[in-house]
Amino acid sequence: MLKPFSDRVSGLQPSAIREILKFTADPTVISFAAGNPAPEAFPVDVISKISADIFAEEPINALQYSITEGYTPLRDWLKADLAKKSMFRDSDNVIITSGAQQAIETVAKILCNEGDVIICEDPAFIGSLNAFRSYGVKLVGVPMDDDGMIMEQLDAALAANPTAKFIYTIPNFQNPTGKTTTLERRKQMLELAKKHGVYIVEDNPYGALRFAGKDVPCIKELDSDGYVLYCGSFSKVLAPGLRVGYLCGDSEVLAKAVVGLQTSTVHTNIWAQMITYRFLKEVDFDAHLAKLRTIYKHKCELMLSGLKAELPDFIKLTQPEGGLFIWATLPEKYDMNKFCTEVVQRKVALVPGNAFSADESAVSHCFRMNFSTPTDEQITEGVKILGKAAKELLK
Amino acid sequence: MLKPFSDRVSGLQPSAIREILKFTADPTVISFAAGNPAPEAFPVDVISKISADIFAEEPINALQYSITEGYTPLRDWLKADLAKKSMFRDSDNVIITSGAQQAIETVAKILCNEGDVIICEDPAFIGSLNAFRSYGVKLVGVPMDDDGMIMEQLDAALAANPTAKFIYTIPNFQNPTGKTTTLERRKQMLELAKKHGVYIVEDNPYGALRFAGKDVPCIKELDSDGYVLYCGSFSKVLAPGLRVGYLCGDSEVLAKAVVGLQTSTVHTNIWAQMITYRFLKEVDFDAHLAKLRTIYKHKCELMLSGLKAELPDFIKLTQPEGGLFIWATLPEKYDMNKFCTEVVQRKVALVPGNAFSADESAVSHCFRMNFSTPTDEQITEGVKILGKAAKELLK
Repeated sequence: MLKPFSDRVSGLQPSAIREILKFTADPTVISFAAGNPAPEAFPVDVISKISADIFAEEPINALQYSITEGYTPLRDWLKADLAKKSMFRDSDNVIITSGAQQAIETVAKILCNEGDVIICEDPAFIGSLNAFRSYGVKLVGVPMDDDGMIMEQLDAALAANPTAKFIYTIPNFQNPTGKTTTLERRKQMLELAKKHGVYIVEDNPYGALRFAGKDVPCIKELDSDGYVLYCGSFSKVLAPGLRVGYLCGDSEVLAKAVVGLQTSTVHTNIWAQMITYRFLKEVDFDAHLAKLRTIYKHKCELMLSGLKAELPDFIKLTQPEGGLFIWATLPEKYDMNKFCTEVVQRKVALVPGNAFSADESAVSHCFRMNFSTPTDEQITEGVKILGKAAKELLK
Repeated sequence: MLKPFSDRVSGLQPSAIREILKFTADPTVISFAAGNPAPEAFPVDVISKISADIFAEEPINALQYSITEGYTPLRDWLKADLAKKSMFRDSDNVIITSGAQQAIETVAKILCNEGDVIICEDPAFIGSLNAFRSYGVKLVGVPMDDDGMIMEQLDAALAANPTAKFIYTIPNFQNPTGKTTTLERRKQMLELAKKHGVYIVEDNPYGALRFAGKDVPCIKELDSDGYVLYCGSFSKVLAPGLRVGYLCGDSEVLAKAVVGLQTSTVHTNIWAQMITYRFLKEVDFDAHLAKLRTIYKHKCELMLSGLKAELPDFIKLTQPEGGLFIWATLPEKYDMNKFCTEVVQRKVALVPGNAFSADESAVSHCFRMNFSTPTDEQITEGVKILGKAAKELLK
C-alpha cells in the first residue's frame, strides 16, 4: 500500500476559480470570473519581431541553460528602473522568477516553517493563499476598509502571532477587491512590520495599470531598512504566457531565494527573459502602458456604469482606480453562493468571495468581477443578465 | 529584528557545482564541470522557423495564460508516445513541468513530510538531492556497483526507514556516474518498491542519448500498478533554455501535483510548450536523436580514449553507453578534493564527487567529467593537462 500525500498538500484543493472556469468552457457563458489580461493589449507584432531578432542574432543564448538569478541585462534594467523610483537600496538585489507567483511561493518556502503565520489582507489573492498553505503555514486575515487593511487589527494580529514571518499585501487595485491602500496606511504597515520584526511581501502586479486617481508610493519606496520584499510581474503589462516576474529586496534574502529556485525550475525560460528585456529597451514602455491604461479604463467604466444602472442599490461595488477587478458585496440576508450558482445557470460566471478568504470556512457575501477578459459586448450583455438576475433573485 | 530562514532551507547551500563554475568564468579554464548539452546539437533553424509560424498563426495562444496541466496537444503527443512504449497505463496522466527538475521537486513537495526519508543512489544528481533537502527530507543513499544500486542494501534501507516515501533513480547513464542500471536490477527495484509500499521516481533525462549497447526497458514499462512516477525532459534532446519537462504517472498523484504547480509557476512558458509540440510533430524526431547520439558518441570516445592514454591506470573510469558524464575514482590514499583544486589551478575544472553524496560530509575519492559542453579541442587539451597533473600530483 502506497502512503498518503504530505500533510502540507493533503488539504489543498484546486483553486475554486478553476472550478468556476469549467463552466466557462461553455462558449455561451460570459465569464467575469477570469483574471486574464485583454488579448488586444498584447504587443504581438513587436514581440514577434523581437523573437525573430533573437533567433537571428543570438539563438544559442536563447536555448542553452542560463543562470538561476535571471538574464543579466534584464536584471540590470530592472535595478536601474527601481533605483529611479527610489525602490532599490544599495544592499538590494533583483532576481527573475517564473511569474510573480513563483516569487511569492519562494519567499514562503525560504522564510516559513510549518505552523508559522503569514498575515494577509482578508480577502486576498487565492494564488498566494494557496502557495502559503502549501507550506503548512497558518493564515491570519486582517479585514480591510476602503483604505486597505485596518491597522489596529493588523497590530493586534501581529502581537497575537509571534511566529508571523511576513505581511502579504497587494496595495494597488487589490485582487480581489480592487481597493488601493492609502499612503498613510502604507506608512503604518511599514512601522508595524518594524515593530514586530516581520517582512512585508509587497505584490504589485497591477501597479502600472492605474487609470484614475493619483499614484501612491510603493511600500518598497518608503523602506530604507530592508523590510520589504517586492514582487513584480510582466504578466499584466506585457504577456502572462511568458511567465516572467521578479523579486527585489535584501541581497541576503535573495541569495537564499536563488538556492530555492535552483531546486525548482533552475531558471526562468530564457527566451522569455530576452523578449522582455528587448521589449523594455526597444519600445517606448511608458507609451505602451498608456495604451493599456486606456483599454482598461474603458472596460472598467463600461462595466461599472452598466452595473450601477442595472443592479439594485443595495449591492455595494468598489470603484477601482486601476487593475482588473470589481468587488461586489450583498446585504447579509442574501446567500451569495446561491446567487453565484444561479447566475452561472443564466450564463454569467462570477467568483464567489469565499474563494479569497484566509479562513476557507468563513461566510462571504461578496463576489469578484473581472472586466479585462470579456469583450465590450460581453460586458454589456453580462451586466444586463446580472441585473435581471439580481432583481429576480434578491428580494 | 527580522527572523531567520525556514529550517528547510537554512542549511541548504548553493550547488557546489555552481561554485566550481565560477572558475570557468575565466575563459582560459577548460570546463569539464558543466552539464550543458552541446550547442551544436540545438536545431536552431527549425526552432526559429517554428517560432515564426507560431507568431504568424496563433500569437495570442503563445502569450495568454494557459492551463496548469500543460499544453494539451503536447500532452496528447506524449501520452501517445509513452503508450507506444508501454509506459502509459489507463489510469495514468501526463503533465508538463518547467524542466524535469520541477517535476522532481513537486513530487517531493506533495509526497514528503519533513523528516520523511527519500532513498537515492549514492552518488546521485545534486539538483534532485537539493530539491529533496529543501523539503526537510532525510536522504538515505544506497551504494552502487557497475549494475546500479545494490539491491540487498536497497532492501535493508527500505526496511530500516518506514517513513521512506520513494526511491529516486536515474537508471540510464546516471548523473554523475554514467552508469546504467541493468534490467534485472530494475525488476528487483520495482519488487522492492511494492514490498515496502514506496513509489519509484524514475528520472530519465538522458535515456534517448544512448550511443552504445542496447536499450534497457524503463522501470515505468515494467510497472502495471502505478508505483513509478516518470520524469522526462526536453533539455538534453531539444534545448534546456526552454525549460520543458514532464511527469507521467498515476492520475491521482498527478492531480495533486497540478495543485502544487498552480501555487508555484501557474504553468510552464506556453511558447516553449508550443515549440516543443510543433518540433515533435513537424520534424523527424528519431533522425534528430540519431544526430545527437552521433555528436555525443564522438565526444565521449574522444574524452575516454584520451583519458585512457593520459591517466595512470590506477584511476578507474566508468564507460558510459550514453548521456553526458564520465566518473573517475582515485585510489583511497589520495585526497580527491586537493587533486581537483590543484587541477583547476592548471585550468581544468572537474566536479568533486562529494557534491553528489547523499551525506554531504562523506569522503569521496571520485570526480565527474562532462564531455558534452567542451569542444573537441578543449577535450583533447584538457585531458592532456589532467594526465600531466595526475602523473605529477598522484604519486
